[in-house]
Amino acid sequence: MTQSNQLLQPDVQGLPLKNVQIRDEFWSSYEALVKDTVIPYQWEALHDRIQGAEPSYAIRNFRIAAGLEEGEYGGMVFQDSDVAKWLEAVGYALALHPDAELERQADETIDLIEAAQLPDGYLNTFYTVKEPGNRWTNLLDCHEMYCAGHMIEAAVAYYEGTGKRKLLDVVCRFADHIDERFGPEPGKLRGYDGHQEVELALVKLYRVTGEKRYLKLAEFFIDERGAEPHFFVEEWEKRGRTGHWTKGPSGHPNLAYHQAHQPVREQSVAVGHSVRAVYMYTAMADLALLNRDEALLEACRKLWDNTVHKQMYITGSIGSTFHGEAFTFDYDLPNDTNYSETCASVGLIFWAKRMLQLEAKGEYADVMERALYNTVIAGMAADGKHYFYVNPMEVWPEASDKNPGRRHVKAVRQAWYGCSCCPPNVARLIASLGEYIYTASQDTVYAHLYIGNEATVSLDQGSVRLRMESGYPWNGAVKLTVEPEQAGTFTIACRVPGWSEGMKLTVNGEQVQAEVRDGYAYVTRSWQAGDTIVLDAEMKPVRLYAHPRLRANSGKVSLQRGPLVYCLEEQDNQEVLASVILPREAELTEQTEPMLGGSLVTLSAEGVAETVSDWDDRQLYRQEPKQTERLSLKAVPYYAWGNRQPGEMQVWIRTQ
Amino acid sequence: MTQSNQLLQPDVQGLPLKNVQIRDEFWSSYEALVKDTVIPYQWEALHDRIQGAEPSYAIRNFRIAAGLEEGEYGGMVFQDSDVAKWLEAVGYALALHPDAELERQADETIDLIEAAQLPDGYLNTFYTVKEPGNRWTNLLDCHEMYCAGHMIEAAVAYYEGTGKRKLLDVVCRFADHIDERFGPEPGKLRGYDGHQEVELALVKLYRVTGEKRYLKLAEFFIDERGAEPHFFVEEWEKRGRTGHWTKGPSGHPNLAYHQAHQPVREQSVAVGHSVRAVYMYTAMADLALLNRDEALLEACRKLWDNTVHKQMYITGSIGSTFHGEAFTFDYDLPNDTNYSETCASVGLIFWAKRMLQLEAKGEYADVMERALYNTVIAGMAADGKHYFYVNPMEVWPEASDKNPGRRHVKAVRQAWYGCSCCPPNVARLIASLGEYIYTASQDTVYAHLYIGNEATVSLDQGSVRLRMESGYPWNGAVKLTVEPEQAGTFTIACRVPGWSEGMKLTVNGEQVQAEVRDGYAYVTRSWQAGDTIVLDAEMKPVRLYAHPRLRANSGKVSLQRGPLVYCLEEQDNQEVLASVILPREAELTEQTEPMLGGSLVTLSAEGVAETVSDWDDRQLYRQEPKQTERLSLKAVPYYAWGNRQPGEMQVWIRTQ
Repeated sequence: MTQSNQLLQPDVQGLPLKNVQIRDEFWSSYEALVKDTVIPYQWEALHDRIQGAEPSYAIRNFRIAAGLEEGEYGGMVFQDSDVAKWLEAVGYALALHPDAELERQADETIDLIEAAQLPDGYLNTFYTVKEPGNRWTNLLDCHEMYCAGHMIEAAVAYYEGTGKRKLLDVVCRFADHIDERFGPEPGKLRGYDGHQEVELALVKLYRVTGEKRYLKLAEFFIDERGAEPHFFVEEWEKRGRTGHWTKGPSGHPNLAYHQAHQPVREQSVAVGHSVRAVYMYTAMADLALLNRDEALLEACRKLWDNTVHKQMYITGSIGSTFHGEAFTFDYDLPNDTNYSETCASVGLIFWAKRMLQLEAKGEYADVMERALYNTVIAGMAADGKHYFYVNPMEVWPEASDKNPGRRHVKAVRQAWYGCSCCPPNVARLIASLGEYIYTASQDTVYAHLYIGNEATVSLDQGSVRLRMESGYPWNGAVKLTVEPEQAGTFTIACRVPGWSEGMKLTVNGEQVQAEVRDGYAYVTRSWQAGDTIVLDAEMKPVRLYAHPRLRANSGKVSLQRGPLVYCLEEQDNQEVLASVILPREAELTEQTEPMLGGSLVTLSAEGVAETVSDWDDRQLYRQEPKQTERLSLKAVPYYAWGNRQPGEMQVWIRTQ
Repeated sequence: MTQSNQLLQPDVQGLPLKNVQIRDEFWSSYEALVKDTVIPYQWEALHDRIQGAEPSYAIRNFRIAAGLEEGEYGGMVFQDSDVAKWLEAVGYALALHPDAELERQADETIDLIEAAQLPDGYLNTFYTVKEPGNRWTNLLDCHEMYCAGHMIEAAVAYYEGTGKRKLLDVVCRFADHIDERFGPEPGKLRGYDGHQEVELALVKLYRVTGEKRYLKLAEFFIDERGAEPHFFVEEWEKRGRTGHWTKGPSGHPNLAYHQAHQPVREQSVAVGHSVRAVYMYTAMADLALLNRDEALLEACRKLWDNTVHKQMYITGSIGSTFHGEAFTFDYDLPNDTNYSETCASVGLIFWAKRMLQLEAKGEYADVMERALYNTVIAGMAADGKHYFYVNPMEVWPEASDKNPGRRHVKAVRQAWYGCSCCPPNVARLIASLGEYIYTASQDTVYAHLYIGNEATVSLDQGSVRLRMESGYPWNGAVKLTVEPEQAGTFTIACRVPGWSEGMKLTVNGEQVQAEVRDGYAYVTRSWQAGDTIVLDAEMKPVRLYAHPRLRANSGKVSLQRGPLVYCLEEQDNQEVLASVILPREAELTEQTEPMLGGSLVTLSAEGVAETVSDWDDRQLYRQEPKQTERLSLKAVPYYAWGNRQPGEMQVWIRTQ
């Protein structure tokens, strides 16, 4: 099941965001949507100015904490993080697209954050405004370090995007404050946060500041987690067995929900809240790389295997249940009651990126691509102003209304949520998409995602400019033009997508026999300015079947073409999608059609549908078999679903 | 959709329980189980003497209320009703099988109940012990009249079974007390209970006492329910918007949950808590009959149609969701998260019996039979000591453990529940089974269920003894021997089961052309002592398909033979029942096998199963179609499931 350990590869890093400009027919419009619509819209939301949406209170909380306004704290205990995630997205956007007005808004926000910071470095508006004196008494529930982590990520992004240090200085003071209170030394709390996030953030802070204490603190949080005696239990006892969410007495902490049930190095099964899980796995992978920690890498591999080969939906989403927004267990992937939170797929992409630095295996990039092209962009409407938290495999709008067990599954994207973690998460990921396309070591450039871009990468032998043109996700043709500052020998490793049957690769028009290893085609040669690699992984519609133990998909098939998973929508087919059958031998054809203001490839087939007309209204069960009629079946890319009128949707289609 | 109104048929009544002795190979053992095991076991449970089961506190509460013991009230707010339901079952058992020791226990319990009654007639240990002074302040939540209703039913059963009036006098005083406080007159509360039950009980009390005030009070509760201004809302406002279950502030009452969202005569869709619903519909049917109330009958018909043709599982169970133990909406009948409470099927049988008095339509008896032979007896283990609350269509034991949305679905029957409404409900139904076999008017005897028995029925022309011998549920041969006190002309109407393709009927060995109307074969002739009717409805295995709108069963088939629905169990087939396919053309064969200490008919077929062995562990999705192998498929009667080692179970089977 798990691979034998192998030496960690040489230090492979991502490219700085500033070095990668997206120039892509598909993604440039998303990037523009985030910059021109999502960021301004979320700015309005953070200021409680969206009509008809739940108020955020997030900026207002900072103003109250800073003494600029009177009032009561509003929103969730982790509301600060929405401001942080917005700032992080702004940092990425400004890195690539300077914008004085946006920078002014951000600077103003940073001034406000600084004003809300206490003299000892502490920064959290919930505790400052609402529960002064209770700091660090409920790490289990109260997200103090989660918010700290997001603020750190924001500070790093904003510093890298603009060169401005103010927020970075704020978070360093805060990190110092945390470091003084937490750690293995006597007198410090041997605690860690209920929602992992600060760990990966501290690694970023270490990378940008070079301050080893931040790395050590991240290591401490990771290594301490799950150790006995359990910190969360001791803390709960000390609190008098109360909880934040219960507003009074609370039950014994559910350690597995927080991935604190056992030391992280001993964990091999993904459990608990899925966003917490993947944020933690991301930090584990970071530390495995930085510390050349084979044991931690091995734990990452086991957790990866379990997550993606036992508990991942075909759209690259995770979290089988609404209850605790959590993993359940192997092969339990119900289609109608899943959670599949947008944030969890964002976190899965973070993790996959780190795994790709640890070892260049196509599987990591395959999952990254699957989560990105399906769940993440499905999480946001084409207008950039409506979002899914939950990304269902199947929607029956009436059931979402009337069956309480399916109420979390929304048939239409919502304007904003009281707990609005997902929208800014999508924004910050898309705004930093350039970080996910390549990694590089001293002598090798890895191309993981085929998204058109212009990039500069520094190798030992000098700087190399790359220009990628890509037909993804509609066709598999990719052209990579290589412009080394000076000609020289290095390797370009191009991912062979897991969904392809193989990929044609030519260099300067000539077929080459590249060495293909673990899902990458390696081309090593002396590169001259203007050399081109042309790749072609044929995109054709394929059927995918699920493991028989995945009971929910028995008798069903899903459709995929290139990186895109497809789904049926009611309006293209009929009501009662459960009656639609795609015969095993039916040919799948593709059409390019206008939709969502652009054009996209839909799939069609001669299908069959069970008829309703021969049933009378007082017949719920009958002995006569169902009758069928022909139906022209049409599937659209999953990411595009729910952008027309509400109706049924289904990823898994009956087959025979 | 609804039938045109027709004149109510002449007064059709059930037979007194004492007039029907069960003599049946299948049911006599259940009757004995209830009398010899269930009633004594529940006696122990009510006294908190079952090792390993949650304590009931029910008897203890009465002792505290009666001043015989010190202590605090324990258990649910409606705990009294468990004592009442036990007494009711005892009343039925004693009617047929005198038992001095059991009667002594019951008398002792009745003395205790009498001692717990307050001087003004009020009787409820929760309010007497725990919240004196708060009587009738929270009808929405607190089940005061629900408990009253069960006590009334117990009193009527015990009086009819033993001739003893003590409990009847107790409940008359209580009913008088209620009548003084509730009603349309000025100064009285225009309220009704949150859990319907007292309505049908008051009808029984009226029948046995002849006191019209009890009938009027039942009418008031039925007619007032759902009228505006809404009583539950006003009561909630008066309480300061608090609730019993929230132990503090509570949201606006969910009127539909209590079937109080609109006047009952205007209701046409089954909504809310399913036990509350069917108890109410039962009382509505009672009142429709007693008052010749066509409008109420029409409401009953509409609600019946909606319940059984849109919201009933094939096992005769209702309640699609755990949340509120409730109906959801038309055709929403998920197999893996259903509720299908045993009590709700018991209530459905109560209702069906009343509908059969209103109009002799085979459909009512078909549903009664379906609920009885499948859900009700599945609700109790073969040992009589373990019970299901929830009767699933599908069980995956690991999911019941690890997926919180399926936690209510138990893979094994439990010893006793803190809220133990179901076990005594099964007991009282089985102990009174004789009441459900026949109804009679002045000149017609209707045979609804084919359960062997010896009965006496009074017709205008004199008393008639009937002896029914039945092969049900294993074969459809029934012999009815007729012994009129004196020869004379009357009609015997025998139900033609809805699952049969027709029923052969001979009288004294000669085929007769009986008039078949609405599912009954009517034989009118001059009957002599010793005349026999022999019926034969062939029982053969059939496939049943669900309405296409019932999405959960698309691509699936269920098996039925006679009244019994079948299911697959893991141990007879394989793990992953979702991979098992019953081909459309596969022949179904039947075998009689020893099981559960007796013998039963199982069904077999040459099936197909998708193989797991060709999948590797790191393959969750793949392009290669699934492979199949042959599998000898075996199905057992649903009622018998879960009596061997725990494993998967599935009612609906994939087909092709």
